Amino acid sequence: MKKKLKLALIGARGHVGYVFKALPDLPEVDLCAVSSGSDESPEALVKNASDRGFAPRVYGDYVEMLDTEKPDVVSICGPFELHAQMCCDALDRGISVFCEKPIALELADLDRIRASYARCDKSKVDIISMVGYRGEAPFRTVYDVVKRGLIGKVKMVNARKSYKLGIRPGYYHDRATYGGTIPWVGSHALDWIYWMGGNSNFKTVYAVHDKSDNRGNGDLEMTALFSCVLENNVMGSASIDYLRPSAAPTHGDDQVRVAGTLGVVETMHGKVTLITADEAKELELLPERGIFYDFARHLICGEPCVVDAEATFELTRACLAARDCADRNGI
Amino acid sequence: MKKKLKLALIGARGHVGYVFKALPDLPEVDLCAVSSGSDESPEALVKNASDRGFAPRVYGDYVEMLDTEKPDVVSICGPFELHAQMCCDALDRGISVFCEKPIALELADLDRIRASYARCDKSKVDIISMVGYRGEAPFRTVYDVVKRGLIGKVKMVNARKSYKLGIRPGYYHDRATYGGTIPWVGSHALDWIYWMGGNSNFKTVYAVHDKSDNRGNGDLEMTALFSCVLENNVMGSASIDYLRPSAAPTHGDDQVRVAGTLGVVETMHGKVTLITADEAKELELLPERGIFYDFARHLICGEPCVVDAEATFELTRACLAARDCADRNGI
Repeated sequence: MKKKLKLALIGARGHVGYVFKALPDLPEVDLCAVSSGSDESPEALVKNASDRGFAPRVYGDYVEMLDTEKPDVVSICGPFELHAQMCCDALDRGISVFCEKPIALELADLDRIRASYARCDKSKVDIISMVGYRGEAPFRTVYDVVKRGLIGKVKMVNARKSYKLGIRPGYYHDRATYGGTIPWVGSHALDWIYWMGGNSNFKTVYAVHDKSDNRGNGDLEMTALFSCVLENNVMGSASIDYLRPSAAPTHGDDQVRVAGTLGVVETMHGKVTLITADEAKELELLPERGIFYDFARHLICGEPCVVDAEATFELTRACLAARDCADRNGI
Repeated sequence: MKKKLKLALIGARGHVGYVFKALPDLPEVDLCAVSSGSDESPEALVKNASDRGFAPRVYGDYVEMLDTEKPDVVSICGPFELHAQMCCDALDRGISVFCEKPIALELADLDRIRASYARCDKSKVDIISMVGYRGEAPFRTVYDVVKRGLIGKVKMVNARKSYKLGIRPGYYHDRATYGGTIPWVGSHALDWIYWMGGNSNFKTVYAVHDKSDNRGNGDLEMTALFSCVLENNVMGSASIDYLRPSAAPTHGDDQVRVAGTLGVVETMHGKVTLITADEAKELELLPERGIFYDFARHLICGEPCVVDAEATFELTRACLAARDCADRNGI
């Protein structure tokens, strides 16, 4: 008999959609309960669950939900500033965590999560953040090229994240509830650098950011630049902004380029190109593999997951260190 | 009667081709003399001059050439480490200078050039470096979009310079004669940031570079990352490398993206795209305008030139400051 996986959801800020998208392909998963984790209505969570044939119990208090339901895994998309506490509350109860990134808004909170995780039984409990791009077709394809050695030894990774600003809810306007544009938008770019760069920790990070001309969005930084060197001496850069104009064909202009000793592989506008000494060509894309699908399969039957706890912690650390560097004007 | 312009050439390292390309369109210019400025043969200079109908006198000693011929303007493409001395020798004689960039390999040498220029009669003598990209169709088109305000207030400029390494002469292998990859290759990218960013001086610069895996090219750095904030708070980034694979369709992958409050304009692969709130479209390119043609017209009849002495000095300063920062591992 196949192992079942009891799932609970906290909150709908961010990418809880990764969970809903995967549920039809995960018959082992039972979505037992939901909580908004804040004073927001859990209605959207209930509706989405219902659309997929689930009738989860609804809790006002997410801690009560964890204690009562004892799920195997919890999705955390609560208020950003509560991510860290929610992660600790779950890990301390032996519950695996699928958390919106960044999992903490301050380095001290990240340390608390690490401490909670250190006390867990690693054979049963895991934590990853929602770095969903790792499962998207173009990024999987780029990573596959890198991993197969087609560009030789990686020397440099360049990333771009440019989003349309649109209308942002009030919690984006306050550093205390938003965390900053480098952790929120930039985390994807930093994750690409870390991942494509060989899963090597960040040796040095440098960043600047600027909230001027942000159309009344309070503390929200409109632009940021990031630069790093990984422990393995791969260089990484990221350009991060909310300046993508409204007539652009997509919400995000997401690009990554990986340059190695034998070639360059790059994705932009959903396409992937590879140039080596022999040829320059567009590549066929690998199929998408949803990140929650990936994580659930990992928890159910031990399949390797595209990201792990150490990568999650290291990415969070780099994002927060870069934001703090930018707060000091790059010094 | 139109003013004539007496021209002399020193050396053929780098972009003296800008001069030869412009000569057929500049009947006012008399190419009177050439010198290699080193122990290299002046043969290529003589041949190129002859192909355009000139029979320049050849000098072994470039100072003797300047003193004897008293040209109005001199092109300086001598050994990189002699650029600064050659600039001073020309300026001190009241001769205008069209010099390969960077015009100095050390900040102290830049100061010497500034001092020589300060003593010149500015109504007659000028100095610019060979930032030839400013005259190329795609970059002129991007700048025109920015200048016309079509993207609003500029917030960020991102640049890429990626070259094929090929076979490099020995003087590229030694920092003392090469200067570094940030000044040599990166100077173009830094110039785009300065120019597109509003001709504002550099407030802070940060850079890293790395010479590992450089295929036996001595000190030559294969990769570099640059990040800056201009005095007007525009952010700039540049990715610089020699990792372009040999099967790539062009020698250089030159890209620049300028993001403003009202739109984003970008050039890559020789094309220019503009996205605003209303539309996303490819633009028709402005015609090319050669930089030596531009400078000569400026000297002959006072037409404005696409670059000036102050921009030349500031670009050199930023390149050398960034290289020195990178030598300290970004600290």
